[in-house]
Amino acid sequence: MNDADRKPVVTVLTAPDEDTPPGLEPLSGLAEVRWARDAESLAGALPGSEVLVVTDFRTGVLGHAWPKADKLRWIHATSAGVDAVLIPEVRESDVVLTNAQGIFNRSIAEYVLGAILMWVKDFHGSLRLQQKHQWKHRDTGRALGERVLVVGAGAIGREIARVTAAIGMEVHGIAREGRDSDPDFRAVHGNDALHEQLSLADHVVVAAPLTSGTRGMFDARAFEAMRESALFINIGRGPIVCTDDLVGALRRKRIAGAALDVFEEEPLPPEHPLWAMDNVLITAHMAGDFIGWRAALSEQFLENLARWQRGEELFNVVDKELGYVPGN
Amino acid sequence: MNDADRKPVVTVLTAPDEDTPPGLEPLSGLAEVRWARDAESLAGALPGSEVLVVTDFRTGVLGHAWPKADKLRWIHATSAGVDAVLIPEVRESDVVLTNAQGIFNRSIAEYVLGAILMWVKDFHGSLRLQQKHQWKHRDTGRALGERVLVVGAGAIGREIARVTAAIGMEVHGIAREGRDSDPDFRAVHGNDALHEQLSLADHVVVAAPLTSGTRGMFDARAFEAMRESALFINIGRGPIVCTDDLVGALRRKRIAGAALDVFEEEPLPPEHPLWAMDNVLITAHMAGDFIGWRAALSEQFLENLARWQRGEELFNVVDKELGYVPGN
Repeated sequence: MNDADRKPVVTVLTAPDEDTPPGLEPLSGLAEVRWARDAESLAGALPGSEVLVVTDFRTGVLGHAWPKADKLRWIHATSAGVDAVLIPEVRESDVVLTNAQGIFNRSIAEYVLGAILMWVKDFHGSLRLQQKHQWKHRDTGRALGERVLVVGAGAIGREIARVTAAIGMEVHGIAREGRDSDPDFRAVHGNDALHEQLSLADHVVVAAPLTSGTRGMFDARAFEAMRESALFINIGRGPIVCTDDLVGALRRKRIAGAALDVFEEEPLPPEHPLWAMDNVLITAHMAGDFIGWRAALSEQFLENLARWQRGEELFNVVDKELGYVPGN
Repeated sequence: MNDADRKPVVTVLTAPDEDTPPGLEPLSGLAEVRWARDAESLAGALPGSEVLVVTDFRTGVLGHAWPKADKLRWIHATSAGVDAVLIPEVRESDVVLTNAQGIFNRSIAEYVLGAILMWVKDFHGSLRLQQKHQWKHRDTGRALGERVLVVGAGAIGREIARVTAAIGMEVHGIAREGRDSDPDFRAVHGNDALHEQLSLADHVVVAAPLTSGTRGMFDARAFEAMRESALFINIGRGPIVCTDDLVGALRRKRIAGAALDVFEEEPLPPEHPLWAMDNVLITAHMAGDFIGWRAALSEQFLENLARWQRGEELFNVVDKELGYVPGN
C-alpha cells in the first residue's frame, strides 16, 4: 500500500453544542475521522492526527491540547478569520494553516450593501414609526455617489467594493500598503492615511482580519476623525473596535449610526448599551452565514483534502505572520 | 413686444399645507405667477392662465375649477404618476400634460434594492430581537441569482432593473407588450404572462402607473400565483393592489412579506391591519423623495418652461390615452 492510498487521520473539532457539519459525510470514506468537542476530547484525538479541522472559532481549546499534536501537518479553519486558531504554538510550528476564504464574501457584501441602503432610506425610522401605526413622510438620502471606505482590501473587502461600486457608490480601500491602481477600488490607501480617509467617508466598513496591526484600530481618535453623518459597519472582528469608544461616539453623536455583526464579547451581553440604541443594527455574528454555508464549507475542505492526498499544493494557505491569505 | 418676450401666466397649485416649492424662485422673473391651494383659489387663478403646475397629486380639486381654464395649454405634474391629474376633462382636452419622469427613478430603485436586501438578510428579524436584547444566530438568504419581477417597464421599472441586475439578480419585466430583447431586463413579458411570471419570482415589484389596465391588477388570484417565499414590493400606486387581498395573502402566508410605500388609502389609517404585521415594511409614500427632490422638480419644470417659451418641443409629454410617457 503506497502513501497515496493510506487514509490520513483527520480530527474535526466542533463547538460543544454544534451538530456534525453537513456535507462532511464523504470524509469517513477518505480518512480515519476523529471527533472532538472540547479540550479533553481534542487531547485524546490529536495523537497520530495529521489533519485538524477547526469549525469552532469561538473557544480556545487548541492551546491546551497542543502538546498532543505529534503528527499534525495541516490545520484547516472553517472561517475567514483565523485569529482564534493562530495561537503562538501554531504560529511557531511548521503546520500549514488554511482557511475558508471565499465562502462568505458574497453574503457579507450583501449584508454591507443592505445595511447601507437601510440606513440611507431610514428603514429603521420607518419600522419604529410603524410600531406606533404612525404615517410620517420624510425625505431620505441616496447611496448614489456616496463614499464608502472599506478597511481591509482582502477577499471580503474586495467583494464589498464590487457590490457597492456596482450601484454607483465611490469605494476606497485601506490596506497595509496603498496603491494607486486597483481593479476593485477607486484607490487603496495605506494604513497611515486611515484618519484622513475616515474624514471623507459616508460609510466606513471594517473588513479586516484581527491581527496585532488591527486590534483596537477603531478607538476614540478614529471615531473623532469620522463625519458626524457617517455610518460605521463592522463585519470583521469585534476587537478591531474599542467598543466603549464606539458607544461614546454614538452617544455624543460624533457618528450617526452603526451596523454591527461582531463584538469584543460574543454573544453581546444582554445589558450592553448598544442593544438599546435606535441608530444601531445588531446582528448575531451571522453576516456571512447564508443558507447552506455549512455544506459549502465542507465541500471546500474536501476539495483541499483531495489536493493534499494527491500531494498537490493547498489553496487558501494563511501567511501565519500576516494572519490572513495574502495576495488578494 | 413679440410673443417670445411676453410673460406667460403660470398658476401653481400646491397642497393646502404645502410650502412654496423651493427652487421655483426664478419663475417670478419668467412669468406672471399665481398661487392656488384649493378649489376656490384655483378657480380664481385659472382664467387667463396658459400653464398650470400641479404639485398636489393627492387631492382632486382640478375638476371643480376646470370650467375656468379658458386659456390653458399646458399642465405640468411634479410627480411620476399622473392619475390624479388625468381627469376626463384633461384627457379629452388638447391641453398638453407633462410629468416629472426621471427625478425619482434612482431613489425609488434604491428603496427597492434596500427592501430586498433587508428582507433577504432578515434585518427585520434582527431589529425585533434587538428590542429584546436577544442574541440569536440565524442563517439567511442571498440576493445573488434570485429572480426579480418588475411589473411596469417604464423609466422607474428600468432603473430598478439596472440596480438589481448590477448586483447579480436576474430581472424580468412585465409590460403591456412583451419583447425578447431588452437592454435592461433579461426579458420583458406581456401582461398576459403575469401570473406565470409571478410563480417564478422571488421578489415582485409593482412599478406601473395607475391606469384602467393596472387598477386592481394584484388581486387574490395574483397573490395565489406567487411563491410562498415571495416578497411583494409596491412603489407604484396603491389602487393597483386590492389591499384586502394582500392582507389575506400575508395572513394566510400565501406570500412571505411585503414592502409598501403606496396604499389605496393614504395616509394608511392607524387601525389598518398592515401596520401590525411583522413581515411588512410600511413607508409613507416617500420612496422617491430624496433630500433635495423639491428643488430638483422645480429645476426640471423651469427647463421645460424655457423650451416652451422658445417654442420648442416639451419633454416628458404624457400620452393621455396610455397614462404615462411612452417610449422608455
